[in-house]
Amino acid sequence: MRKFLDADFLLYSDTARTLYHEHAAKMPIIDYHCHLVPKMIADNYQFADLTEIWLGGDHYKWRAMRGNGIPEEYITGNKSSYEKFEKWAETMPYAMRNPLYHWTHLELSRVFGIDKVLNPATAREIYEECTAKLQTPEFRSRAIMERMNVELVCTTDDPADSLEYHKAIRENGFKVKVLPTWRPDKAMMTANAEAYNHYLGQLEAASDTTISSYADLLSALEKRHKFFEEQGCGLSDHGLSTFYGDSYTEAEINAIFAKVRSGKNPTVEEDHKFQAAMLYDLAVMDAESNWVQQFHIGAIRNNNTKMFRQIGADTGYDAIGDYEVATAMNRLLDKLNTEGFLAKTILYNLNPRDNELMVTNAYNFNDGTVPGKMQYGSGWWFLDQIDGMERQMNALSALGLLSRFVGMLTDSRSFLSYPRHEYFRRILCNILGREVENGQLPESELPFIKQMVENISYYNAKNYFGW
Amino acid sequence: MRKFLDADFLLYSDTARTLYHEHAAKMPIIDYHCHLVPKMIADNYQFADLTEIWLGGDHYKWRAMRGNGIPEEYITGNKSSYEKFEKWAETMPYAMRNPLYHWTHLELSRVFGIDKVLNPATAREIYEECTAKLQTPEFRSRAIMERMNVELVCTTDDPADSLEYHKAIRENGFKVKVLPTWRPDKAMMTANAEAYNHYLGQLEAASDTTISSYADLLSALEKRHKFFEEQGCGLSDHGLSTFYGDSYTEAEINAIFAKVRSGKNPTVEEDHKFQAAMLYDLAVMDAESNWVQQFHIGAIRNNNTKMFRQIGADTGYDAIGDYEVATAMNRLLDKLNTEGFLAKTILYNLNPRDNELMVTNAYNFNDGTVPGKMQYGSGWWFLDQIDGMERQMNALSALGLLSRFVGMLTDSRSFLSYPRHEYFRRILCNILGREVENGQLPESELPFIKQMVENISYYNAKNYFGW
Amino acid sequence: MRKFLDADFLLYSDTARTLYHEHAAKMPIIDYHCHLVPKMIADNYQFADLTEIWLGGDHYKWRAMRGNGIPEEYITGNKSSYEKFEKWAETMPYAMRNPLYHWTHLELSRVFGIDKVLNPATAREIYEECTAKLQTPEFRSRAIMERMNVELVCTTDDPADSLEYHKAIRENGFKVKVLPTWRPDKAMMTANAEAYNHYLGQLEAASDTTISSYADLLSALEKRHKFFEEQGCGLSDHGLSTFYGDSYTEAEINAIFAKVRSGKNPTVEEDHKFQAAMLYDLAVMDAESNWVQQFHIGAIRNNNTKMFRQIGADTGYDAIGDYEVATAMNRLLDKLNTEGFLAKTILYNLNPRDNELMVTNAYNFNDGTVPGKMQYGSGWWFLDQIDGMERQMNALSALGLLSRFVGMLTDSRSFLSYPRHEYFRRILCNILGREVENGQLPESELPFIKQMVENISYYNAKNYFGW
Repeated sequence: MRKFLDADFLLYSDTARTLYHEHAAKMPIIDYHCHLVPKMIADNYQFADLTEIWLGGDHYKWRAMRGNGIPEEYITGNKSSYEKFEKWAETMPYAMRNPLYHWTHLELSRVFGIDKVLNPATAREIYEECTAKLQTPEFRSRAIMERMNVELVCTTDDPADSLEYHKAIRENGFKVKVLPTWRPDKAMMTANAEAYNHYLGQLEAASDTTISSYADLLSALEKRHKFFEEQGCGLSDHGLSTFYGDSYTEAEINAIFAKVRSGKNPTVEEDHKFQAAMLYDLAVMDAESNWVQQFHIGAIRNNNTKMFRQIGADTGYDAIGDYEVATAMNRLLDKLNTEGFLAKTILYNLNPRDNELMVTNAYNFNDGTVPGKMQYGSGWWFLDQIDGMERQMNALSALGLLSRFVGMLTDSRSFLSYPRHEYFRRILCNILGREVENGQLPESELPFIKQMVENISYYNAKNYFGW
Repeated sequence: MRKFLDADFLLYSDTARTLYHEHAAKMPIIDYHCHLVPKMIADNYQFADLTEIWLGGDHYKWRAMRGNGIPEEYITGNKSSYEKFEKWAETMPYAMRNPLYHWTHLELSRVFGIDKVLNPATAREIYEECTAKLQTPEFRSRAIMERMNVELVCTTDDPADSLEYHKAIRENGFKVKVLPTWRPDKAMMTANAEAYNHYLGQLEAASDTTISSYADLLSALEKRHKFFEEQGCGLSDHGLSTFYGDSYTEAEINAIFAKVRSGKNPTVEEDHKFQAAMLYDLAVMDAESNWVQQFHIGAIRNNNTKMFRQIGADTGYDAIGDYEVATAMNRLLDKLNTEGFLAKTILYNLNPRDNELMVTNAYNFNDGTVPGKMQYGSGWWFLDQIDGMERQMNALSALGLLSRFVGMLTDSRSFLSYPRHEYFRRILCNILGREVENGQLPESELPFIKQMVENISYYNAKNYFGW
Repeated sequence: MRKFLDADFLLYSDTARTLYHEHAAKMPIIDYHCHLVPKMIADNYQFADLTEIWLGGDHYKWRAMRGNGIPEEYITGNKSSYEKFEKWAETMPYAMRNPLYHWTHLELSRVFGIDKVLNPATAREIYEECTAKLQTPEFRSRAIMERMNVELVCTTDDPADSLEYHKAIRENGFKVKVLPTWRPDKAMMTANAEAYNHYLGQLEAASDTTISSYADLLSALEKRHKFFEEQGCGLSDHGLSTFYGDSYTEAEINAIFAKVRSGKNPTVEEDHKFQAAMLYDLAVMDAESNWVQQFHIGAIRNNNTKMFRQIGADTGYDAIGDYEVATAMNRLLDKLNTEGFLAKTILYNLNPRDNELMVTNAYNFNDGTVPGKMQYGSGWWFLDQIDGMERQMNALSALGLLSRFVGMLTDSRSFLSYPRHEYFRRILCNILGREVENGQLPESELPFIKQMVENISYYNAKNYFGW
């Protein structure tokens, strides 16, 4: 009987333990995609209590609580901090085998130094001990990041964002590098013309331009793209249902833009054409700046209209979709490649049934210029769990090069999520350790395998992103 | 070397064995979805021989035999009982690793007390021993159900069904509760207008109404729905290719109904609109009665026209389809949820590639009123085997709450299928036991885990369905 | 710690080792689908060096090298043999966990008798030792095939091919049977009318007919089909994106043919109709000759236009697609079955998410005439690796009859690929051995299981194809 979550958690062979403890565990964290709020880093935010830092904004936990029959008032409603926490503690045992169970206990253990199991009986003492600790300087946002050995994070930012907090962070000397990521989703989402025009107003202000044509839009975005680059940005990101590979003409795009700018909603076909055009033009900007571009596809969002009206987006009502992807994705990447504008690219797909499809299609566009130029990204969102990460790594291994993988990212809104890197690294080391011991990998190559572990944990990202 | 199918079959750790023997095995069976023929329970049916009870109507075995090159005369044809059985015994070794191999031997062992392996050498003695036993009162339909510790079963019934045998069963004092399930598939299937109008005639007779409009149809169904409720029914079920989320107007539905009622087949688009409307209106009835609704999707049926003409539906020519599902399913569930008509719901999908999609989309609509309100149902039909059940439970665990799972059902036409509950429980206990022993679940929480096993085996269903 | 790639490689139980060494390993190889060049067998080809035999034409390795950042000049370009090999050796450690890592070392060990691990340090000695061996008669094409215990191979040939080398091979007394396979893809691909008409010219010459109508086309193909049969052919093969089940009339097909024959490209709809018609008519020819027909579906090809223009097709820019398949496939197979023209059929699907769908749909058409008439073929191309083969065999087992599986094929262009049969057999024996030892299969049935191993390795193919 192995102890829960002990030093050798998830490491089931001697070689796995060596790989993890002597190699993976020693690497700093590069968290190249997350959703931290830059202001909270700039302000060295102090959290009021465990509920705020743990349950505020965490739609994973909210979904689990709703599934457990907890009324919404305890989730996003007006109940007190402790009452909410109590319901979370009550839900915890019911979440066994869900990644929340491991994440929760890893966070308690690694961040707060608490090795108790959370359940109704321990709820009060854990809440009080953590909340007391959160009052101390060691549990402000920055101290947590430093203690977790974070070297660099990339936040997720809109082109219209001033990036003032990134500047402030740089200026007041934080050891952890905090870089912006260019996420121009709003610039592409014309479906609701009113919202889109509102957004263009923000973009006009930020770029100090007037946007009356598609060309103006691109100019404004280019200006902001350059500004992001000046602020240290080297990554873009797109959140899409799926790729759109519709063919279009310049005239069509101009007409669609004019229609939407005049306040009319586009048809679905027009919307797809517009997204296809924007994806191409934005990808050209990334290529010209030698950035890395990321695409997160496969989510179906805001499915619960009633709750969307009450509490808005990103509140736990998104899911995995079943979109077609190969043809349109290849069309976009092929066009970019043919014209010499294909930047380094990381593809993420939320539907695990498509892992093999994604790796093989990504690898159509490796061109020998950069090792691992085309990446299939780590198990994302719902897939950030043992099965999801193993399947992503197994598909990547069997159909591509695991050794060139840029590895883990938290994609998280929380300052407590860094143990997910540990979780990932343990799973990686366990896979490799097992195969060395069972004769599927040669023991004689262990020096290379140790380096591979360090690379996937840290160096591959550092080199790939050019940090 | 472990013994085949012994007491610890599929239980590979001490904890798994404890969980199974001391908890799972002791729970009665609630078989909340099956296809038993109520008359055979009411009549306390006696089977003539092993072929009748085992091979009659079992299209799983028929498919295996056809795959093994056995001519149809030995399957659904005119060969004698023993000749048919002999061909099945001949096929048995060729079915190793197919669930039929385990099911067959579990049924022999648990129902007939025979621990021999079935193959051509043992065929005769097994046939004779079982057939002899089937002559005794202990092997009539009711005695088998009682001996298997069945507490309750739900059959699958058409709205036009009189439910007379359910009434008879209640009246003559059978210990096992036998409840009907409302399965209105025929009321939705307008594609063949002639067959549909024939069915409406049956529905008119059963409901003592005249059906000349869509409103009449709903009235007739409501009347029958209430009747089913009076007979103890609390579950509905739908067998669909996939969900249809087409938008429609009342006028369109009225027109489609009128067209079909006049004997004309609808277009495919009309058919989908009509199904979308019916699904909504039937779901409202279920919500108003506080029933549980079930949706079985993903099958592609009657693919072999030649055999369909010879021996009809449900004869082993159905398969797994590749239908799109997320968008339409969310549209239906969202509309119901927004309007306050979303009943407790169990979703089953026959394509295992969609497990993750299904769990995450189901969980969009948990609303904190009932633990596990939205269920992703157990591995169904082709997926009712080790790999299928493990994948369903792993997806449910990683993306939802395994602890709230209402568990297993046989979906079977046979009185011999109850050992599938044992099979399921062993697999469940093995998963949980392994993770306690390997440190992925805390040993200190074993009391909760034991309760979880009993819940998934029995209490969750009991509470969820309100029995 | 087990030794890498030793005698018990991938065999993790005593029973697995017995099954492999005493049964699987002793069987000859029937490689019923490959892409060897017949001329190289007829000529008893001698390879210049290790680069030619190993890297020439191997787009698997090319993809891995590109992914590893190797410039194209070292892959398909003008660098010297050794410079290319050096880059491959450099890539090798980075390919750990990719099947190339096992294939490479199996080929070194089993064909060249070299048990060193390939990496930059061993590159020179391995290159020299292998290249020296390639100068000897024992490493000409035929000697390799004989030493690998190959009994029969089927190449892949166009209907317009003269099959002269097959004749030459027969006539000069090679121990290994080398049979052609009928692969009429070019006769179906009308999308590019110019290329299609060019091809029809070749077919006219080969068949000594004039092709001015669809009927002429069928006549020409029938003539060649008969010729192939005379040359020992008993297999056809189709490489399709997916099945097309569009309905069509004779008049439509005649018109589409006339349009294309006159030099105009068909619409996409016309192209699909034409393919649907051809698939049917070609399948009838196969049925009338009692051949086995194969369908390879699910690939999305030539995705990289830039490289396609530079180096053409089959150069490592193909991938896994996400095509719908069930409905159209059933429509074709059902039509053939209804009309009595469904030949023995092997279906291969490149997207592993569709394994379960494929097995269940294939099994709709078993008719009891031939054991295993409808086959779901072995993990193919990207899926020819441990995970891919295990998933194919697990799906086939759970949803069909593993015992009736016709087993492995290399699908390879290389004379070095025969160890893939060994790889497959080890995986098969490991699966079966594990389940005997863990009580999922009865030890008492070991004699049958041993026979099953021999059958899947050899006898099933021999019987199924009628050799």
